[in-house]
Amino acid sequence: MNWLTAEEALARLGTKPQTLYANVSRGRITARPDPDDPRKSLYRQDDVERLANRPQGRRPARTVAAESIAWGEPVLETSIATVADGRLLYRGQDAVTLAETATLGAVARLLWGSATEVDFAGRARARSPGMTAAYQAVAELAATDMPAAGRNRAVLLADAARTVSFLAGALAAPGTMPAHHRLAQQWGRPEAADPLRRALVLLAEHELNASTFAARVTASTGAPLSAAVLAGLAALSGPLHGTASQSMAGLVEAARRQGATLAIGAHLRQGNALPCFGHKLYPDGDVRAGALMAAFTLPPVFAELAEAGERLSGEKPNIDFALAALVGAYDLPADAPLQIFALARSVGWLAHALEQIETGTLIRPRARYVGTEPTR
Amino acid sequence: MNWLTAEEALARLGTKPQTLYANVSRGRITARPDPDDPRKSLYRQDDVERLANRPQGRRPARTVAAESIAWGEPVLETSIATVADGRLLYRGQDAVTLAETATLGAVARLLWGSATEVDFAGRARARSPGMTAAYQAVAELAATDMPAAGRNRAVLLADAARTVSFLAGALAAPGTMPAHHRLAQQWGRPEAADPLRRALVLLAEHELNASTFAARVTASTGAPLSAAVLAGLAALSGPLHGTASQSMAGLVEAARRQGATLAIGAHLRQGNALPCFGHKLYPDGDVRAGALMAAFTLPPVFAELAEAGERLSGEKPNIDFALAALVGAYDLPADAPLQIFALARSVGWLAHALEQIETGTLIRPRARYVGTEPTR
Repeated sequence: MNWLTAEEALARLGTKPQTLYANVSRGRITARPDPDDPRKSLYRQDDVERLANRPQGRRPARTVAAESIAWGEPVLETSIATVADGRLLYRGQDAVTLAETATLGAVARLLWGSATEVDFAGRARARSPGMTAAYQAVAELAATDMPAAGRNRAVLLADAARTVSFLAGALAAPGTMPAHHRLAQQWGRPEAADPLRRALVLLAEHELNASTFAARVTASTGAPLSAAVLAGLAALSGPLHGTASQSMAGLVEAARRQGATLAIGAHLRQGNALPCFGHKLYPDGDVRAGALMAAFTLPPVFAELAEAGERLSGEKPNIDFALAALVGAYDLPADAPLQIFALARSVGWLAHALEQIETGTLIRPRARYVGTEPTR
Repeated sequence: MNWLTAEEALARLGTKPQTLYANVSRGRITARPDPDDPRKSLYRQDDVERLANRPQGRRPARTVAAESIAWGEPVLETSIATVADGRLLYRGQDAVTLAETATLGAVARLLWGSATEVDFAGRARARSPGMTAAYQAVAELAATDMPAAGRNRAVLLADAARTVSFLAGALAAPGTMPAHHRLAQQWGRPEAADPLRRALVLLAEHELNASTFAARVTASTGAPLSAAVLAGLAALSGPLHGTASQSMAGLVEAARRQGATLAIGAHLRQGNALPCFGHKLYPDGDVRAGALMAAFTLPPVFAELAEAGERLSGEKPNIDFALAALVGAYDLPADAPLQIFALARSVGWLAHALEQIETGTLIRPRARYVGTEPTR
């Protein structure tokens, strides 16, 4: 596979640098770090040629619409968050900087545009805390809460905080402490509180991924905010989404037995993509992973996997890798990444649900029927 | 407001009849029945002029993408169902014809492409049957079921049937009878069994509405099939979707007090759209409403509302009206329409989830960031 520098790619495409980066972030051009200068990226020649040879002018509407649900042209506008120039921005503020000191409550206040502090305190203790309790708690709210449509922002913000509070109550120890302390206490790992705080901040929001989109579609019907969170939770349960970091378990096992280089080499030689390395939106590496892994000592097997993975695949560890390493470092429950993800991202789902409600529009796409012709 | 005949609209637009109908079904041109000949439609002149004056040639990609989530260009292909020429077709078969004799199980077999009979029998009895129990039952499955990704069709079909069976168990009386008998028994209305059967068949599937899209987005992450149904349930809880027929309660009350004509007149004079009349996809009237209302005697207040509503608004009663009338005719629980909708549509959600899994693609749209510029 041949790789071009940015200058070469731009010369071939005849576009501005922004267009090149947009094509990378939409997955049309694969990028990887330049081995000679990791601050720069290289661009896959095949992808660049394909785009350069594309017919000029506007594409047919049916193509644009079909691509719109797969990293294509944006389908809606948002003021909540974006990934730009390799940085994750929450309302314009760098999430990595926020992660140094902020709590999930502070991020919720920022993302929801709340004038007052946001608090997820709760005294309820789930009989058996975990994901099943989380589903049950949010399902109960969704079945009984008031619809969001037609109610004002102040009551909706209260609903939003209550939904996260129920979720926190289902996953973490009860109390008035910030959520990261309650998770650390629930798992009997007080020393993990600070890395957990960072993880909650870094995972709170990530633009229109599948779970956020499901939440937003749900909110567009005027459904209760808790129903939007329930839809987000449902989508998060997929292996392509919230449970990605658990897909590394086999690799970690193999690395323990035979060393990271052999384990990753064997994995890649079977033609498998390397789980938990690389991210479409971050050609130069997922900034969230670096920010989280800076907060604790990587267990040796993860340090070796990170090094060997990057050396052999050209991709850096992503946030799913960092979560798996966090679990390894503090011996957290195997599904801790999903629990952290669910609690953190509920804040982002609610920000999008609130934004969608303000548009007052129903999300209702159409499908092209390609099935059996009607019988008469 | 001026209205054009089909001939006049076509002359102004210079398109084929199919393009005119497509514009109606996408909501770009409002249509209503011709008062002089109800088999024909009239088309709103303003809409026709706006489209006729649109710049020629392809529209910009950003416009097409933004419209794709609001009745725009199709975002994906489906072989499951479509609305064509005012008919609702399940795998090419007319849903109104199916509704004469089929059960929900038979429709599931058709929509899921199952080689064998589909059965929702179950012996579990919910402690307190209803929507809360339905959410709880499906949430429990979603939290514990296997992901759908990577498993074969036979086991997925078993998962699908089990999910509907759990839902039926949460809403209806236990047993091995078809679902409509179990609902009728649960509500103590055995004489309502046949209209309930029709309603379940007619509501089983309706292309890419918001709840089906939420289910499909969820399935695209590889999540368990039950998680896709949970996302569908969440979206269905919105007033713009599954609870629409309950929005008629005020109108029914007013019609009882002052008569249907005065009640509807007052409603329209306040500038409110008439709930439960008209449907974008059926310019000549929602065929499902007619098919359902043919199966029972309309209570007088509903007969008067149907007549006055059509006379004053030009729109015919839709399926939400028919469900409200069904509740009135048999004195069913107030949220029976939502329960019927949820049980019926779970079959359609699962058909779409199965179809989405076969594509193997993640639904991941993008948003255009229009918020605060990054701080440096």
